[in-house]
Amino acid sequence: MTKRMSHDQMRLKSFIDSQSAIRQNLYSGHTAGLVADCLQGNLIIVPKNVAFEFSKYCQRNPKACPVIAISDVGNSKIPYLNADIDVCTDLPGYYIYRYGVFEEEIQDIISYWNDDMVAFVLGCSFGFEHALLQNNIRLKHIEQDKIVPMFVTNIETNPSGIFFGNMVVSMRMMSPKDVIDAIVISSKFPSSHGAPIHIGNPNEIGISDISNPDWGDNIKFDNTDIPVFWPCGVTPQLAIQNAKLPICISHAPGKMLITNKKTS
Amino acid sequence: MTKRMSHDQMRLKSFIDSQSAIRQNLYSGHTAGLVADCLQGNLIIVPKNVAFEFSKYCQRNPKACPVIAISDVGNSKIPYLNADIDVCTDLPGYYIYRYGVFEEEIQDIISYWNDDMVAFVLGCSFGFEHALLQNNIRLKHIEQDKIVPMFVTNIETNPSGIFFGNMVVSMRMMSPKDVIDAIVISSKFPSSHGAPIHIGNPNEIGISDISNPDWGDNIKFDNTDIPVFWPCGVTPQLAIQNAKLPICISHAPGKMLITNKKTS
Repeated sequence: MTKRMSHDQMRLKSFIDSQSAIRQNLYSGHTAGLVADCLQGNLIIVPKNVAFEFSKYCQRNPKACPVIAISDVGNSKIPYLNADIDVCTDLPGYYIYRYGVFEEEIQDIISYWNDDMVAFVLGCSFGFEHALLQNNIRLKHIEQDKIVPMFVTNIETNPSGIFFGNMVVSMRMMSPKDVIDAIVISSKFPSSHGAPIHIGNPNEIGISDISNPDWGDNIKFDNTDIPVFWPCGVTPQLAIQNAKLPICISHAPGKMLITNKKTS
Repeated sequence: MTKRMSHDQMRLKSFIDSQSAIRQNLYSGHTAGLVADCLQGNLIIVPKNVAFEFSKYCQRNPKACPVIAISDVGNSKIPYLNADIDVCTDLPGYYIYRYGVFEEEIQDIISYWNDDMVAFVLGCSFGFEHALLQNNIRLKHIEQDKIVPMFVTNIETNPSGIFFGNMVVSMRMMSPKDVIDAIVISSKFPSSHGAPIHIGNPNEIGISDISNPDWGDNIKFDNTDIPVFWPCGVTPQLAIQNAKLPICISHAPGKMLITNKKTS
């Protein structure tokens, strides 16, 4: 029997080796910190009859849903990212939704893919987080080995056809100096959510208790820290749940598509 | 009988007044230099059955086809640009194509619009040109009151479904110092084609004679000037001609949609 790999073992792999391990279902963990200088992406797969409406949803909400690539109808390859990427096998985990309800997490979607499907690869926060770390900005969820806390806000996204919903944000607690640098640096990564959408009082965007995130973990922080909120890739997952499509597939949280495009 | 307006008369108008004059078909000239600090856009209207493929064509060719806004199917308003914009009436001129062949130029498309149509508003070069002028970069076609010269290159765009074709570029002749500044400044306007795609030898992108443009005028320049080539909004017009759709509508060259979004 082939041996499963730990996150630490995967950390040492090149793009090709990590892709190969994920493709063979030898690794089903999260992809944070893997092949660190390579762009990672969220995945949303929808039927072709709503592909235009979803494309328009992304265009109208570019900070939450920055489109990196779109597959041709029925083709699970993503040629303009990398000729060899196959969205059916190259992520460590997938969520299957039926009529907007989560059904199961699986390790490949070969049996689900059909000629009717279109895959959207959307930017995720790993791109700007990598840049923040390289500029010595402290990311406390990483220091504490936790998942970044995420919250549903009261900010409505711009709807498109059957797709709608409130914006989800990720929160990072930072010193005032780090806040300034993080805004400047993340603004240079529009494909990775870009600049924050809010800093300071969480109530102003409908978050009543920052110690109780909707997803992710509660993070320890300093009294002088300021909360900084970025648009989050969970936003389109809410929109596809709201759309109640007969079938829809996304990456499992934290288990992204690793590309061999550089984040810079 | 209501009097038609000259370009000089239109120059003095605010956004609201120029929109009103165009809507009433009192002005059918080009929009260069009108409401100068407002974003202008190219227009492409396609039937909904190919809207996803065209959206994907733009996503795969973002420098030539930067999407500013997409209408809902069958709705000629563009709410996320400005609640009051109507693409049926708010451009001074439209081209009608049937099966990829130009048929006529008209002043409004009220009789053509139907529930099946989707309007794409794409960024145009006026945005970065305005910024270049404000930074004292000489634009010789404007100094000489000519239309910028445009060329079909040998650069193939990334196809999407029935949409394909070579990239069209606009050329501006500049001093070396202006070239550097123009690259830096235009790179900050990704919704207006962004940085150039080529400088120097025109042969390298398949242009054999810069004195003989495919569209626009021949411009006088200095011996020490360097040619600078930007992706051009005529590119998607070639793609829709290649797609040979039963009907397709675009803006008439130089006659853009004026929005009340600021270019900056």
